Amino acid sequence: MSTALLTDHYELTMLEAALRSGAASRRAVFEVFARQLPGGRRYGVVAGTGRVLDALESFRFEEESLAFLRDNEVVDEPTLEFLAGYRFSGSVDGYAEGECYFPGSPIMTVEGTFAEAVLLETVILSILNHDCAIATAATRMIRAAGARPLIEMGSRRTHEAAAVAAARAAYLCGFSSTSNLMAGREYGIPTAGTAAHAFTLLHDSEDQAFQAQIASLGPGTTLLVDTYDVAQAVRTAVELAGPSLGAVRLDSGDLGQVAHEVREQLDALGAHKTRIIVTSDLDEYAIAALAAAPVDGYGVGTSLVTGSGSPTAALVYKLVAREDAEGVMRPVAKNSVGKPSRGGRKDAFRELDADGTAVTELVTVSGQTPSGARPLQVPLVREGEIVGREKLDAARVRHREAVAELPSNAYQLSRGYAAIPTVFD
Amino acid sequence: MSTALLTDHYELTMLEAALRSGAASRRAVFEVFARQLPGGRRYGVVAGTGRVLDALESFRFEEESLAFLRDNEVVDEPTLEFLAGYRFSGSVDGYAEGECYFPGSPIMTVEGTFAEAVLLETVILSILNHDCAIATAATRMIRAAGARPLIEMGSRRTHEAAAVAAARAAYLCGFSSTSNLMAGREYGIPTAGTAAHAFTLLHDSEDQAFQAQIASLGPGTTLLVDTYDVAQAVRTAVELAGPSLGAVRLDSGDLGQVAHEVREQLDALGAHKTRIIVTSDLDEYAIAALAAAPVDGYGVGTSLVTGSGSPTAALVYKLVAREDAEGVMRPVAKNSVGKPSRGGRKDAFRELDADGTAVTELVTVSGQTPSGARPLQVPLVREGEIVGREKLDAARVRHREAVAELPSNAYQLSRGYAAIPTVFD
Repeated sequence: MSTALLTDHYELTMLEAALRSGAASRRAVFEVFARQLPGGRRYGVVAGTGRVLDALESFRFEEESLAFLRDNEVVDEPTLEFLAGYRFSGSVDGYAEGECYFPGSPIMTVEGTFAEAVLLETVILSILNHDCAIATAATRMIRAAGARPLIEMGSRRTHEAAAVAAARAAYLCGFSSTSNLMAGREYGIPTAGTAAHAFTLLHDSEDQAFQAQIASLGPGTTLLVDTYDVAQAVRTAVELAGPSLGAVRLDSGDLGQVAHEVREQLDALGAHKTRIIVTSDLDEYAIAALAAAPVDGYGVGTSLVTGSGSPTAALVYKLVAREDAEGVMRPVAKNSVGKPSRGGRKDAFRELDADGTAVTELVTVSGQTPSGARPLQVPLVREGEIVGREKLDAARVRHREAVAELPSNAYQLSRGYAAIPTVFD
Repeated sequence: MSTALLTDHYELTMLEAALRSGAASRRAVFEVFARQLPGGRRYGVVAGTGRVLDALESFRFEEESLAFLRDNEVVDEPTLEFLAGYRFSGSVDGYAEGECYFPGSPIMTVEGTFAEAVLLETVILSILNHDCAIATAATRMIRAAGARPLIEMGSRRTHEAAAVAAARAAYLCGFSSTSNLMAGREYGIPTAGTAAHAFTLLHDSEDQAFQAQIASLGPGTTLLVDTYDVAQAVRTAVELAGPSLGAVRLDSGDLGQVAHEVREQLDALGAHKTRIIVTSDLDEYAIAALAAAPVDGYGVGTSLVTGSGSPTAALVYKLVAREDAEGVMRPVAKNSVGKPSRGGRKDAFRELDADGTAVTELVTVSGQTPSGARPLQVPLVREGEIVGREKLDAARVRHREAVAELPSNAYQLSRGYAAIPTVFD
């Protein structure tokens, strides 16, 4: 499906006016950055880059869209003609997906004519604002969970298409699997799930439900044990599945306390290897609070897909440089109260200390590469051709490495300052 | 595109186990309801019903999806065969779209075999949880804005497909227009927009930018006047467009104060009819705070698409009744700690006092219709056929009427109790 109409009306009216004034053909540089991190977080996570490239590839105004724009008099005929032939021919650079970012980090830079670059604003921001917000929450959950696996299961609590993107962002940050089948098909993410309370209620007794599930999914399955009485259900579960029962799931109550009781009961029944999975409105704080409880895995839903209190990343797409009447590139920046921005095309580097720990986010306009600092931008599109596509697993590995490089204050769950300062040079 | 994989893995494993146990063919009733309203709101808004019907129509397991499920061993062969022939043949009833809801309101009821009804859980909840959350925020903004128009412009701050649904939910609640072109094409919502700061920065001076915009869009356009100096920009704008200038837009600063200054300046320049549109992180509180300012319209972005602090509606899809081994329908409910639910298929009515003001949300399991109360459920699907489709404008009118019927405490912006109590009978 074409992504071209996932665009704000004003991008097209600006295009029309710029085509008429002649400024549309000026070379322009747009930059995606955030003035601050979502929710007082210590670092942000770049996610959605691969989806931006997919959207760019499908950004074509087909006949149906052109007819809509014509019928509704959104733009004039010369503009419709321009759109009919639209194909982005410029370049895109950006932080590699999975990388960390900080306030002012130029996470994506789009260069082309004003006409071709301005049109991409809305869809690029939609993707990055959503995916970065989810990833910036997910990375905290991963840290809080330590070595225990996390299952993403929030599809039902967010828009049906956002759910697929959220599963992707979560996996990128280290989640083990997702409940979302479309995310499995589209992105190759492992999918997981066994049964809900409805399955127990469907049968005439909990025994019959557990028997049916074990018959179908084997004793290695996860049985949901809190539909009626937890202790009774655990007894029934081990009786029916034997000590090789894969796991039990707890979805209500004081999970820490119940997990202790259930662990004791499982051990007493000889089911030493049966794992305990907990779900039920978990966020990074709840996960951290369960660190000392005998829990073997977490299922996270609502808080993951809603960015744990920060559902959007506040990224903006700003014109930072453009040709003047003489064809010379000039940095530009608006001067609005309380919304400062910095002109000029930027390069970005992470400066590390002798131990390899990040100390500064260095953002420069000089075009020079400081020695010893790690460059953060990679080419994504060249002359309209996508050159930066990669497997999601590569971004997943990069994310783990990028997080490991941060100073320890980056892992604080409290609200506060960015883990490292951004220095503009 | 098929919606069938917008589904949690466990719906399919439950299906497989139920097909094997024989329980899959039991008649079952699932109910969508919320245990509480999002964010301490006084009422919720049912939105997304039309989108659920669209999703239901496209809920087919085509070959590509079946191949994915087979290759990844999500379910066994008999289950794949069932899915290949899947077509919902049951019934759906629900609150008409745009209607208000309260804790425990059965906003949607799905009846069919367990097999066919359980599969719809994820996509139905995804749609309703998103759209109801957005609408429940939007209705408050409408109230706060009084007679002034609201433009929805949050696409860039949410997932690109969620943006289209958010525009739909906002329009349903009374927003005048949206920036989102896809929402215009898909749902016939009026679209609006003129120019961003980038357009001013593109040109060598603000004069040139304004001239270009007026030449293209006419003097009735809206000029953005806060790129550099507001007073200078307003002077330039009226000079170039004349007193018939349509509007100026303010996107930064203390909007109330700046609006007063700009109104004075516009009037002094003879531009008495030039309107003032304000944008910049507005939510229902900021809108209400501007009630006394000379503002003629609001553009709302981030807070609308993120549900103004409550991005999801906490709706659940619960099995409330099913056949037993003898073929008799039985109410069912789980007994989990802190997550009570009520068994039985429910009817819902709004009881009004003599003045026509809502006093009670009456939810019954008796099957009887109380006299004088307004029934809230309408047929949406019968024997698999969609019977409840309607135009978005019909839902928009219904919403206005449903809100007008509520007692005045429903309009409080503070967090608190639902405006009317839900009585279970």
